[in-house]
Amino acid sequence: MKLLRYGALGQEKPGAMDRKGVIRDLSGQIDDIAGEALLPENLDKLKALDPESLPAVEGAPRIGACVGKVAKFIAIGLNYADHAKESGVDVPREPVIFTKATSSICGPNDNVVIPRSSEKTDWEVELAVVIGTPGKYIDEADALDHVAGYCIVNDVSERAFQLEGTGQWVKGKSADTFGPVGPWLVTTDEVPDPQNLPLWLEVNGHRYQDGSTKTMVFPVAHLISYVSQFMSLASGDIITTGTPPGVGMGQKPPTYLKPGDSMQLGIEGLGEQRQHLVASD
Amino acid sequence: MKLLRYGALGQEKPGAMDRKGVIRDLSGQIDDIAGEALLPENLDKLKALDPESLPAVEGAPRIGACVGKVAKFIAIGLNYADHAKESGVDVPREPVIFTKATSSICGPNDNVVIPRSSEKTDWEVELAVVIGTPGKYIDEADALDHVAGYCIVNDVSERAFQLEGTGQWVKGKSADTFGPVGPWLVTTDEVPDPQNLPLWLEVNGHRYQDGSTKTMVFPVAHLISYVSQFMSLASGDIITTGTPPGVGMGQKPPTYLKPGDSMQLGIEGLGEQRQHLVASD
Repeated sequence: MKLLRYGALGQEKPGAMDRKGVIRDLSGQIDDIAGEALLPENLDKLKALDPESLPAVEGAPRIGACVGKVAKFIAIGLNYADHAKESGVDVPREPVIFTKATSSICGPNDNVVIPRSSEKTDWEVELAVVIGTPGKYIDEADALDHVAGYCIVNDVSERAFQLEGTGQWVKGKSADTFGPVGPWLVTTDEVPDPQNLPLWLEVNGHRYQDGSTKTMVFPVAHLISYVSQFMSLASGDIITTGTPPGVGMGQKPPTYLKPGDSMQLGIEGLGEQRQHLVASD
Repeated sequence: MKLLRYGALGQEKPGAMDRKGVIRDLSGQIDDIAGEALLPENLDKLKALDPESLPAVEGAPRIGACVGKVAKFIAIGLNYADHAKESGVDVPREPVIFTKATSSICGPNDNVVIPRSSEKTDWEVELAVVIGTPGKYIDEADALDHVAGYCIVNDVSERAFQLEGTGQWVKGKSADTFGPVGPWLVTTDEVPDPQNLPLWLEVNGHRYQDGSTKTMVFPVAHLISYVSQFMSLASGDIITTGTPPGVGMGQKPPTYLKPGDSMQLGIEGLGEQRQHLVASD
């Protein structure tokens, strides 16, 4: 099932995309794609519905982030060997956990705002996991049972803020609009193998990233288990799992985003995102 | 005004402490000490009430974290010169921003759980700021106008998780119960100078930390302004502003917490916290 949230920012309604690409309204079933609605028993109820029996949504509404009320937006750094190499660092011995402010979350096609005094705004297409069943100290063997579904995240990053200051990355990962999430939360039954998904990102039509989740250093199940040793995971928490090679910082010379640019990115089976870059007011 | 939340974990009700130390119920006025209730115009309505006209709460209920629905739990590292020295590092040239998972938040007197395989759980008494008026790119001159009030945070930290891994501190700052917040959110009218507050922490009755917010490297107004350059701030966001010298890691030899220990900590005018340490199940 492809769950989504549509409507104006902050007023999104829950919906699902049917096989013909029509958005169906889920407002009669759930309040939001968020929290307890993501528990397996509640997702099963939604999956049992006949999408064609639900009201079709007219027009082409804005698509919001595919998960609401996110409490934790956790990210993993340097989780593709080739990306670590282009960043000039060794492959980490353990997953690098950092966070993005939840206030960075936006819709998959919303404008991305370049922060004031930014000169190094960069892109990162990533496979993200949305937690369904809460847990802590989760065994790797059970970890995928805690997943509600998968989606695309563009882990937009300001490299000077991230890397040229005090060493804590959250500062360069958290500006408003630095976290496009969606378009769909694709439930696990439609993603048989999260470690075999092509993913790509283009800027102004030039393909910079063209990878596969096959080459992750630490697979999704390991990441969930690892993160849960250090903090509990709740329904609706997002873990975005790192980016393949081809970010702007890794180009020769480095290439960064400027107002007027556009990003287009996708993951097989999870849809596509498209963002325009604008200057901060 | 001393705002607080009382009742069972996850079911806290809003209240206020009157001058005699009696908890008064605010359920008739607001849903929670959270979000928009912290806007200046809404706090003004609460301040205008006669506390004695509100229902007195019977008995001695559990005190919860003094703010609910916290979206961002932001922390500042190495913000006291002497603490940087005991940590063996230089005073930073700019504030070190990191985050604690919001799932670490607990009541001021709840048990603190030592994580599995932890050998270096440590304490940090801190002055925390709770945002009232949202903002980004806030000028330092206006920054204190964005504050709803102040409270105590014990920034409990696992030093091996924080420092001996990949360099990102959030991993050692985010275990469940690592964020006691409260007992009270003290509104700004009762805290004329946040840069002149004695603060202290004892473990098993021995005073390890005995400092003053006078010796902060970057004052509260600067921190709010600085953080807001990198992420927007919302009503109910917490910024905890760093700890004075005397943490366990800085002792000779280093001293860490173990099950059965107790911490007691306070800040002048903001009350006290007391936590017992227990082992993880």
